[in-house]
Amino acid sequence: MQVTVVQIDNYGPWTVDPEPRPETDIQSLQASLYADLCELFGQQDSLVFYSRFDNVVAVTNGTTREKHAAIQESIGNRYPVTISMGVGAGSTPAAAVREASGALQSTGSAQDAGRKQELRVAGTGEGVVEVAHFDGVDATHNLTDELDAYEAQINMQEAYTDLARQLWREHDSMSFFVGGDNVVSVTGGLDSEALRGVARRVSDACGVELKVGVGASRNPREAGVQAKMGLETCRESGETVAFYGSSTR
Amino acid sequence: MQVTVVQIDNYGPWTVDPEPRPETDIQSLQASLYADLCELFGQQDSLVFYSRFDNVVAVTNGTTREKHAAIQESIGNRYPVTISMGVGAGSTPAAAVREASGALQSTGSAQDAGRKQELRVAGTGEGVVEVAHFDGVDATHNLTDELDAYEAQINMQEAYTDLARQLWREHDSMSFFVGGDNVVSVTGGLDSEALRGVARRVSDACGVELKVGVGASRNPREAGVQAKMGLETCRESGETVAFYGSSTR
Amino acid sequence: MQVTVVQIDNYGPWTVDPEPRPETDIQSLQASLYADLCELFGQQDSLVFYSRFDNVVAVTNGTTREKHAAIQESIGNRYPVTISMGVGAGSTPAAAVREASGALQSTGSAQDAGRKQELRVAGTGEGVVEVAHFDGVDATHNLTDELDAYEAQINMQEAYTDLARQLWREHDSMSFFVGGDNVVSVTGGLDSEALRGVARRVSDACGVELKVGVGASRNPREAGVQAKMGLETCRESGETVAFYGSSTR
Amino acid sequence: MQVTVVQIDNYGPWTVDPEPRPETDIQSLQASLYADLCELFGQQDSLVFYSRFDNVVAVTNGTTREKHAAIQESIGNRYPVTISMGVGAGSTPAAAVREASGALQSTGSAQDAGRKQELRVAGTGEGVVEVAHFDGVDATHNLTDELDAYEAQINMQEAYTDLARQLWREHDSMSFFVGGDNVVSVTGGLDSEALRGVARRVSDACGVELKVGVGASRNPREAGVQAKMGLETCRESGETVAFYGSSTR
Repeated sequence: MQVTVVQIDNYGPWTVDPEPRPETDIQSLQASLYADLCELFGQQDSLVFYSRFDNVVAVTNGTTREKHAAIQESIGNRYPVTISMGVGAGSTPAAAVREASGALQSTGSAQDAGRKQELRVAGTGEGVVEVAHFDGVDATHNLTDELDAYEAQINMQEAYTDLARQLWREHDSMSFFVGGDNVVSVTGGLDSEALRGVARRVSDACGVELKVGVGASRNPREAGVQAKMGLETCRESGETVAFYGSSTR
Repeated sequence: MQVTVVQIDNYGPWTVDPEPRPETDIQSLQASLYADLCELFGQQDSLVFYSRFDNVVAVTNGTTREKHAAIQESIGNRYPVTISMGVGAGSTPAAAVREASGALQSTGSAQDAGRKQELRVAGTGEGVVEVAHFDGVDATHNLTDELDAYEAQINMQEAYTDLARQLWREHDSMSFFVGGDNVVSVTGGLDSEALRGVARRVSDACGVELKVGVGASRNPREAGVQAKMGLETCRESGETVAFYGSSTR
Repeated sequence: MQVTVVQIDNYGPWTVDPEPRPETDIQSLQASLYADLCELFGQQDSLVFYSRFDNVVAVTNGTTREKHAAIQESIGNRYPVTISMGVGAGSTPAAAVREASGALQSTGSAQDAGRKQELRVAGTGEGVVEVAHFDGVDATHNLTDELDAYEAQINMQEAYTDLARQLWREHDSMSFFVGGDNVVSVTGGLDSEALRGVARRVSDACGVELKVGVGASRNPREAGVQAKMGLETCRESGETVAFYGSSTR
Repeated sequence: MQVTVVQIDNYGPWTVDPEPRPETDIQSLQASLYADLCELFGQQDSLVFYSRFDNVVAVTNGTTREKHAAIQESIGNRYPVTISMGVGAGSTPAAAVREASGALQSTGSAQDAGRKQELRVAGTGEGVVEVAHFDGVDATHNLTDELDAYEAQINMQEAYTDLARQLWREHDSMSFFVGGDNVVSVTGGLDSEALRGVARRVSDACGVELKVGVGASRNPREAGVQAKMGLETCRESGETVAFYGSSTR
């Protein structure tokens, strides 16, 4: 599996130079940049996640150094900031993101005024990507239509953090909140029992019931779409876990 | 204080109709829509937060019903989805978001195919908005340049969730992650001791040390910029908490 | 009538610094910037035209200096380039655009490296704006579905240039191509006979038959919508010219 | 040479359904869509031109059917409108655009409510693309800083239309205004004398003096960048025409 870490160059200093820029302009800039990265990497069949907003994490199987450089140049020509990227590979998401992060860090600090539009490829890979897409059961009914907007957010936030922590610490998997009551995990391959266990613990700790669809492919986008189709199967069958294209595992 | 809750209409069903849309296209759509809301409400001196991505929360003191309607119409003319909005007011963020959420919910369910581009104003207000802007101490050095990108994300995620929970449950305040190691809280007015206590508990629980700048104004944007200036004071003086324009409180 | 001229600062040099940037990135930047100006001025009920792409012309009745400054700052915070603006007023579009242009030029040359984010307001006004919206008769059938894309473009281009020249030289009106086979003219008030004459000459010279709807309001957006409603009347009645809200003139 | 014609599906009716949409929202939509097409096709090293705004023309050597389909789907998932495309090839721009247009037209009318997201590939090609980039001599000084914004626009408009007509009618070349005082022509290969002749006639008819840089490559983007470098040579040497990488032709 190949992972790319994208980082805005020298961004902290930029946000306060010459004086603090209004937060809403900064939010608009970050979100536009992320939307563009989604478009550009999306055309490479990558999955792209908002991560820490000024750091974006993508699963980029098969996307070459040349394509990375082309995306980087396009952003640099259209934004007031530039981006640097590190690319790495590994048999688990954790291994791949570590290699990618190391590659990026080797080009200099995120706040180094001299680092600009660096690209370092430490490893490439096209191994199978497994995606588990979690969704709240009846979350619209239970959260969105019942609680106030912030109570719903914080409930989802707690469930997401709990889920992400378990999957990272115990399963070397990266999870990302993607909106509403949805969390997408890139895993190294979890069986039905493990997924059910994770969901049960979130339900016990946070009171948010989850269902999960799972897909797997060398093509990240395809794995993601399969996971969504798995979720549709959950919705129809009432199961907690559904693997795309197979009844059991 | 006036709060607006923005919600994409019938969005869940749209994302899987006629079949599941690729996640990266959905992320691009949500981020573009949010960037536009930042621009449009930003011109009203509002603060706008990404919340649950398909639900956006804004502090909108002084923004009229007519302006809300104009923003709503502009989005409706340029996106494949429409948005509904509820507006409310209160003396605390919690009270205001509750009124705004109730207003929105009274127009129908988030997944009601018949609800389209509704706007309900339950209350308006221009009371003082207090903004506390939290930032990690040396987070670039300690997190971004040292840890891998996902470890840094999950650390920040845990600290943010902890911070947000405390401020919501104990202080009726709404907190939002805004990128990097930054969290912006809209509070009902906290003194230095309360802020220091919150930061200390996050440091104890999550190992992330925070500093915080505070601003207050009837104009939300102005309050936000003041908070950032407070943070600059923290950076210079080494203090944990700095109120804009006053040495103590 | 109030007109604003928006100009990208020191843009020519930027496009070749440090070396020529790919044209498609430049097109993307210009179009995004224009889309944003449409959104932001659109919220002020202004009309905004793409003009020379790096120069944008807007009809901005009632939009204050403060709003102009807020838009300028927002762009400056999100783009790799900044914009300067001149605002002027007059009883005809020609008079207003001359005053606006003079105001802008008085701040320095478009390629002056030292000019940055200037705003000069020479005059303001809220007088009636008259909009004439021209559309090709059966242009989809006659041009788009019949000719190749470039032949259709150049036919439309010639008709537009002819129309614009007449309206500018003889009627002090500014005309802008807005897509497809549509041209929007901001006029000082033309009667039915004058409009019919202009359309006839275009038809004779270029073979493109036009119909035209006309609206008038102190609110530019409203005048534009009325003109479109006039066009709908033309479509129904077969008339060449229709003034919104009146059968004759 | 391979050309793609992109057309918004059933767009005219959409702009007035259920009632006329404000022009500025339509302009914002078109410009955003075009900016996205520039980004997406730009990653394929294509050149993309705004043409008639609702019809976009691109030079797409080497861009496969699959890539076209992926771009089409991404747009369809993020916009309120869909696009159809025709792809064609030929030894001249005129031949290629004719084949591409015919392919598109064979899928149905631009205003056929039943035509949606069609893609027809009539021919593909990777032959050399020759790009001639025209720029006004001292246009900033002579036009932008001296004339009012609309007078400068209409002068440029007339020169562009004159240039485009000559190059289309006599040289089977497509020319596009790209902002400021710049016109990019995709030609079938013109020698220095022909280019000088075209420029002279524009200067005689419209009073706008032009210089022109020329590039040629199987890669459209590369041809475009070479043409800009040719222009830099013109600026330095004072020549009217400069071919990239050769002193004469």
